[in-house]
Parts: sequence; structure tokens; C-alpha cells
Amino acid sequence: MFGVDDVQNATSAAVTNPPGLGNFKFGKLVIFDDPVTIDKNYQSEPVARAQGFYFYDMKNDYNAWFSYTLVFNSTQHKGTLNIMGADLMMEKTRDLSVVGGTGDFFMSRGIVTFETDTFEGAKYFRVKMDIKLYECY
Amino acid sequence: MFGVDDVQNATSAAVTNPPGLGNFKFGKLVIFDDPVTIDKNYQSEPVARAQGFYFYDMKNDYNAWFSYTLVFNSTQHKGTLNIMGADLMMEKTRDLSVVGGTGDFFMSRGIVTFETDTFEGAKYFRVKMDIKLYECY
Amino acid sequence: MFGVDDVQNATSAAVTNPPGLGNFKFGKLVIFDDPVTIDKNYQSEPVARAQGFYFYDMKNDYNAWFSYTLVFNSTQHKGTLNIMGADLMMEKTRDLSVVGGTGDFFMSRGIVTFETDTFEGAKYFRVKMDIKLYECY
Repeated sequence: MFGVDDVQNATSAAVTNPPGLGNFKFGKLVIFDDPVTIDKNYQSEPVARAQGFYFYDMKNDYNAWFSYTLVFNSTQHKGTLNIMGADLMMEKTRDLSVVGGTGDFFMSRGIVTFETDTFEGAKYFRVKMDIKLYECY
Repeated sequence: MFGVDDVQNATSAAVTNPPGLGNFKFGKLVIFDDPVTIDKNYQSEPVARAQGFYFYDMKNDYNAWFSYTLVFNSTQHKGTLNIMGADLMMEKTRDLSVVGGTGDFFMSRGIVTFETDTFEGAKYFRVKMDIKLYECY
Repeated sequence: MFGVDDVQNATSAAVTNPPGLGNFKFGKLVIFDDPVTIDKNYQSEPVARAQGFYFYDMKNDYNAWFSYTLVFNSTQHKGTLNIMGADLMMEKTRDLSVVGGTGDFFMSRGIVTFETDTFEGAKYFRVKMDIKLYECY
């Protein structure tokens, strides 16, 4: 995920300013449209886009909350997965909920496990998402 | 959905300013409380209110993301449907998820299909929502 | 929930300014990280944190919309519940949807009933949440 100071590569942008509650960006809300790749290279052919938002929400540590859609549009998969939950960044892995799906993922539910893959300051970070679906039709 | 420059009729308002990522309002977040009617006349008796928010999230085209509640409060239906998903505006129709419901729609899940009905610039637009529920109690 | 003007105690902060649509804070979006206690004393040992956001969305009365995660991390419960829905503040009680869960609450769904417990202006308010889960694994 590239920040807005690099417009050419940017895939996200903060739309609020943290109101000064602690030193961990509490209240910073970021809207994103990110490529999702199979491997760890952001220049690989994307298998999906992740479109949605997150914000930081803790006064005394980094902690975030996400809600977004994975949009698949390839020969392999067409459809979306809708996801929301807390990103408890102090944990090595943390689970969010897949609360619905459309197209190939019609009515899906499940779990997405986040694991921070790389964090190069605010300019770029990458999260590994491990998706498990438990309800499909 | 009327914009804020017409306070009398307005049913929505932008609460962030796009941070300048492209020319398609990336980052503009709008909160709304809109009437939902059976036909295409916004002055018809509403059957529900749509309360929630959306934002634009693409650098090189119009694309949006919605999360909202349909609030029914009539003799026919009382209860809510909770909805989220990507509004892929370049598609003729696009599906979002009904992720939960209350009251008459207790524990519902399903799909809402969006189709743009009219788009009179930023001042007024109307979306057709076709709701299909697949899980009810 | 304490507002931001008391930084020491604050557990929430507004990140947008209402754009002037009526007199009921339409468009004010608040991000929060609040303790959840069994009783009505905010100084009791929390059983969970409520992390997420809400905003006001009505022109002619107080009305809000919530999306948040209950984060449990005690010897009794570990896991999260993901919740969204309209907070129809003019009703004595109102139902939101539990749309997913993780950990001890793996794949849960259900209803959360809100009831305003105390409201001391914008500086502090407390909501009673009655959680009923109907789907668990």
C-alpha cells in the first residue's frame, strides 16, 4: 500500500487528520484501492483488488480497524468478498470476518487472517491475507 | 440523493475533501439518510430509509464503496437490513452483500444488486436496488 | 465514552466536522476504543474493548450509525465479534447485527440490542449492549 505523497504509485490516501489523541495516529482514516498478489511482489499480476478503508484507533499503541471488499475479476474468479474487523497490530496474526460474498463467492462467510509482511514506515506496507471460507453455496 | 448545496432537500453530505489522487473524487466520503421508494419518483411515499455512507476509491475512474442500513418502519415492514460492498460503477449492475437483518428481517442474508437509474451530476443521483434474501428465520 | 476535550480520559475522537446540515451533528464521524464493562461503572475491570466508529446521519433529530468490533482478551473469552447497523436513537431499544466473529466466537452471528444508559451531553455517554448469538460453531 503506497501513501499519497507518491501520486504516481499511490493506492491509498488519508482523508482525515488525527485529532491529537496520543502518538499512534488515532483517528487517521485511509481509503485504499490496492492490488492483491499471490506472492510478495507488488508488481506481480494482481489476482484481486482490495477496496475499502481502515483507521487507527488506539491511544497508546498502533491498532487499526478495516472494512473492505476483495474484488476478483479474472478468468479464474469473478466476484467479491466483503470483510470487516479489528486489525490488532500488536498480535503476530489476527482474524477478521468475511461477512458476505457475491459472484463466484455467492453468500460466502469465513475468516481472513492478517500477518504483517513488511512495514516500511507510512510510505509502504504489505499485509499477508490468508482467507478461509466456511460457508459457500 | 441530494447534495448539501441544497440544504432544504439535501439528504447527504460530504464530510471529507478528496486529497487529490486523480480526478474521480478518490477519498470523498459522503454520509446519507435517503428515502427509498418503490418507483422512480423521490416524492413518492418512502418504503424505507437508507442510512449510511459511501466513498469514492479509484484513481482512474469513478468507483465507490458503500456500507448502510435499510430502515423499514411501516405497517408492512418493521426492521432493518445491513448492507456492505463495492459499487463497481463501470459495471451495468453490481452486487453488494446483505450481511444481517433485524426485526421482520431477523438474521437475513442476501444480495443487493445496484443499477444506476439516473445521474444528474453531483447534485442528484438515483440507484435502483434489487434485494434478494436467501437466509431468513 | 469520553470525548477528546479530556485527553487523559478520552476514548474517542471526532475526525470530521459536521457540514451544517441541520442541528443534530449530521456528518460528525467519531472513532472510538471504549472499555466494555459488566456493570454501569466505567472504572470496573473491562471484559472487552469496543473498537470502531459511528456517525450522526439525520437532519431533524439525533440518529447514528455504528460499525465496530468487540475485542475480548481475558481468561474467560478470547476473540472478536463484528457488529454493524443503525442506532435509531429515538427508539428506547434498537437492534444492530452481529455479522461475524473470530476466536471463541468463530463464525458467530446474532443481534446486539442498544439501550441508552446515560447521556451527559457530548462529553460522556454510555450504552447498554445486550448481545444474543444465534449461530455459533
